[in-house]
Amino acid sequence: LNAEIIAIGSELLTPQRVDTDSLYLTDQLNSLGIEVTCKTIVGDDRERLAAAVRLAVSRSAMVLLTGGLGPTEDDVTRDAVAQALGRKLVYHQEVADQIEQRFARAGRRMAEINKRQAFIVEGASILPNDRGTAPGQWIDEGDVSILLLPGPPGELKAMFEGQCLPRIQRKAPKQVIRAVCLRIAGMGESDVDQLIAPVYTKYTNPATTILAGAGDIQVHLRARCDTEEEALALLSEVGAPIEALLGDRIYSRSGDPIEVLVGSMLRESQSTLAVAESMTGGELAARITSVPGSSAYFVGGFLTYTNAMKAALLGVDLETMAEFGAVSKETADAMASGARKRTGATYAISITGSAGPDSAEDQPAGTAYIGVAGPNGCDVTHRRFLGDRPHVRAFAAQLALDLLRRRLRA
Amino acid sequence: LNAEIIAIGSELLTPQRVDTDSLYLTDQLNSLGIEVTCKTIVGDDRERLAAAVRLAVSRSAMVLLTGGLGPTEDDVTRDAVAQALGRKLVYHQEVADQIEQRFARAGRRMAEINKRQAFIVEGASILPNDRGTAPGQWIDEGDVSILLLPGPPGELKAMFEGQCLPRIQRKAPKQVIRAVCLRIAGMGESDVDQLIAPVYTKYTNPATTILAGAGDIQVHLRARCDTEEEALALLSEVGAPIEALLGDRIYSRSGDPIEVLVGSMLRESQSTLAVAESMTGGELAARITSVPGSSAYFVGGFLTYTNAMKAALLGVDLETMAEFGAVSKETADAMASGARKRTGATYAISITGSAGPDSAEDQPAGTAYIGVAGPNGCDVTHRRFLGDRPHVRAFAAQLALDLLRRRLRA
Repeated sequence: LNAEIIAIGSELLTPQRVDTDSLYLTDQLNSLGIEVTCKTIVGDDRERLAAAVRLAVSRSAMVLLTGGLGPTEDDVTRDAVAQALGRKLVYHQEVADQIEQRFARAGRRMAEINKRQAFIVEGASILPNDRGTAPGQWIDEGDVSILLLPGPPGELKAMFEGQCLPRIQRKAPKQVIRAVCLRIAGMGESDVDQLIAPVYTKYTNPATTILAGAGDIQVHLRARCDTEEEALALLSEVGAPIEALLGDRIYSRSGDPIEVLVGSMLRESQSTLAVAESMTGGELAARITSVPGSSAYFVGGFLTYTNAMKAALLGVDLETMAEFGAVSKETADAMASGARKRTGATYAISITGSAGPDSAEDQPAGTAYIGVAGPNGCDVTHRRFLGDRPHVRAFAAQLALDLLRRRLRA
Repeated sequence: LNAEIIAIGSELLTPQRVDTDSLYLTDQLNSLGIEVTCKTIVGDDRERLAAAVRLAVSRSAMVLLTGGLGPTEDDVTRDAVAQALGRKLVYHQEVADQIEQRFARAGRRMAEINKRQAFIVEGASILPNDRGTAPGQWIDEGDVSILLLPGPPGELKAMFEGQCLPRIQRKAPKQVIRAVCLRIAGMGESDVDQLIAPVYTKYTNPATTILAGAGDIQVHLRARCDTEEEALALLSEVGAPIEALLGDRIYSRSGDPIEVLVGSMLRESQSTLAVAESMTGGELAARITSVPGSSAYFVGGFLTYTNAMKAALLGVDLETMAEFGAVSKETADAMASGARKRTGATYAISITGSAGPDSAEDQPAGTAYIGVAGPNGCDVTHRRFLGDRPHVRAFAAQLALDLLRRRLRA
């Protein structure tokens, strides 16, 4: 069973606003085993909305519309749906009375224009609105259900959960959707795909999606089955060979980001961590400390944006920097070792490099040296990242966390 | 002139993700006087995408597609657009060569599947991608322009501004849209609205939108007129009384975030800055150093997540912390003063507090003390922020930057 969502409102077509009602509805529908296959956002334009409704009704089992049910001229949803389905709008005096009573309870008089909200598409059942004036409407057109729902999130949620959910459950298949999310560090999107495509392309169920972040690839597998047992079995049938191929590149099977994983590993091994950041300027530590409870293992560190600070705060030899450069293996090594020594932490990570857009010390933008110092010495990894300043910094922080993860696993 | 945007990607149909590329594109198009009249989000489904393209091409002057240009089987945009327009896909060896060279520069071999990205819709012009592998495509179908753009925001922006904007400008109407964005620190959204609503509600042109971030309110005014002069005159007619009401709460009239403003002020006054972060764990420094060229004024700092580190790295007296707490005015003062002394920077900002969800030292989650030390001594500001951990940290960093801004203006 599949659904489409149509959000109505010119304000949703400005640069400042996103449609969030559809996220809520998607979550609700998915939990019933219903996929959302398309979302459309249209302004307060009757013709365009009618065209969107016609297209959606032609191909989807459910069409959910949010917004455009208010009392003003701009509120075109009732008219557009009636037009798209070739049905009339019928005035319901009892709906107008309810709206009037609602106003009366608030000590106000209903404005004449609110009577517009009493027009119901012929054959629709009325969904009373406990939280606002606009009633919802449920229309069956052949096998397709069309729901007109109010835009304000509070009204939408109350109406959907109170009146739509039970009705959809009867219509919905007994199917369940279960998903896993593998997160992978240290590989590019196309490398991951090339490796695992021979496995996942043999299946349409589960559906596989690959998402790329900075040094962080997510593989989502979503299985849709009649029972939870079948779904989990299918996920394991497809997931196991994929996991075998990716091996220890997988850092998370729960969807958690790498800073959460590394945090758990540090906690379990009763280790502590310090940082010494130059190019990432605090971003690595900000990620580490974004995890609630990170104060159990993160002690602190040093932000050394100049050579003088690398020398003063970390004890990096000025001659080392003069000879090899501040962006060098030698400096990264001295930074990590210095941070570890000066904080007494079990591990220390250093990052020095050039985030761009300008190059530093003849090193091209994107160059990074990452040091991980621990009880068994210090390793430095050299990489050149492509992309703009935010990307390069995000890549470097991600790689640094993955290097620590590998060290902690060893 | 009107445009439609089609975002492609099954991940954009999950409960977790919104399409943000379209916000950027809407902003760009609006600035050229082009309205966005519909947005559609489809999964990695060729038939559905082709249907969306056909509908859009039938009624809009421009159709912008984002995403689905990657190298995997899931990436269906090229195929779907070719199908919708009844055109062939043509393999371009020179595009494949460029992608291969891009990999080579990063010291990697191109995967075989990346050759998919060298298929171009017949008759399209190729939009080279400086930041990624997927080239964009510009197709003219009668009077309609169809743009295939990459999904990653960095690639999209560079390609759009570098290659699409000048071409669209030639096509765009003579009407202009001009906007100003005032950014305000230290006020809540409803306070801002209550203050300025008497001014802006008198006008439908310019349109006014108020957006709320963490301690950061944006007031957008958008005027649409026949000439730039008229638009600017209208913006100033409405903007001047709004600016007078908000006074020095406005930190930016250009839309720039506060770290850019503070950076310019530090540069102009030839001052330097250091930080000492506890609760924000690097987030303040990460924002400061997100600005290219920030190494001209930011020297570095200290991340002190434990009392021991506050004592060792910043010289905060352990007895002070025992008496007043690590989350206290006294500790914030000692942290800022210690950071300034140990780095020699003109100014130092300290943040100590409890980001939550758990409270620290009987201080409720959200409590923060922010110190600003400079040539005229150290001031500490105490605030309690509401919200979850990421919000509290963002609020604290924003307030810290605003406190420094006020000090620098004095």
